[in-house]
Amino acid sequence: MDMAQFVHNSIGCWKSQRSAHHLAFAHFEAVQSEIQISLLQVTDPPVQDLCRQYHIDPIRAIAPFSMSWQGQSDWEDSEPSQGSCVLVPIPDPDGAGQLLRSQGYAEEIPAIGRYVFLPDGTFVLTTPYDRASAEERIWFVTPQMRCRVSLIKTRSGTGVVTASFASEIRV
Amino acid sequence: MDMAQFVHNSIGCWKSQRSAHHLAFAHFEAVQSEIQISLLQVTDPPVQDLCRQYHIDPIRAIAPFSMSWQGQSDWEDSEPSQGSCVLVPIPDPDGAGQLLRSQGYAEEIPAIGRYVFLPDGTFVLTTPYDRASAEERIWFVTPQMRCRVSLIKTRSGTGVVTASFASEIRV
Repeated sequence: MDMAQFVHNSIGCWKSQRSAHHLAFAHFEAVQSEIQISLLQVTDPPVQDLCRQYHIDPIRAIAPFSMSWQGQSDWEDSEPSQGSCVLVPIPDPDGAGQLLRSQGYAEEIPAIGRYVFLPDGTFVLTTPYDRASAEERIWFVTPQMRCRVSLIKTRSGTGVVTASFASEIRV
Repeated sequence: MDMAQFVHNSIGCWKSQRSAHHLAFAHFEAVQSEIQISLLQVTDPPVQDLCRQYHIDPIRAIAPFSMSWQGQSDWEDSEPSQGSCVLVPIPDPDGAGQLLRSQGYAEEIPAIGRYVFLPDGTFVLTTPYDRASAEERIWFVTPQMRCRVSLIKTRSGTGVVTASFASEIRV
């Protein structure tokens, strides 16, 4: 598995069923959402802008894509959430690399993470933030279904604040 | 990571927060449970019995262990569940191997699965059953926390019926 293949497999619309475990209080949160993943061009202005922001030559980018989502949590009084972000992979020669994103997962600011692929094709992304770090794992069970585990850790990585799991089915 | 090390890391009492996604109906189930994992001896009668049942020489077994759990689902009218099983690893020379269990995950009968370890230490177990197959992945985030993803698939492996995720914290 390489990044171009992984992005290619991810393109489309996904119905996501996500459970978040807020560990300190043993709370469960259930979120239903729809996620749209679309391929972008390296020449698209948002891709160029994001590369410039990180002082990276856009010529190094491959398979940039956008992700947009809208979802609804089962927590009381929660508003439907929606958003979108641009993601730009910058591969190393060995198949691992960096992933730039216009809006982070743990904090809503631009973020840069490191990804690797495990031999079974699992994508593992580690992203440091100001006050936390995030680890995401995504793997395809079938071409029509993927799993995603996201952990929000303390900045030092010693504790886990939130663990969440999404099962995503292609619409 | 090898099986002896993995079992050693797992010994103890764990508080588990588990979410099951029943995919056909997009239903969520939340289960809180406590899991006790204890080391057994190869000479213990339940270990010997399980090996005999699969016509495997117990001398090939390493680090057999027992798992017992009691839990409570948030589904209406569900009774507290509890149970226990004996697990016996039979390693190959390459570090992968077979795992015998006295009671299966997808079906409550004895089962034999194949395990491998990914380079990051993730334990991946695949178990065929009569009418289904199960894939479990367990990895340690810290020595005090592990994640477990379990998928129940159709026998042919083409569809996923239930996807569940447990975050487990050492008590």
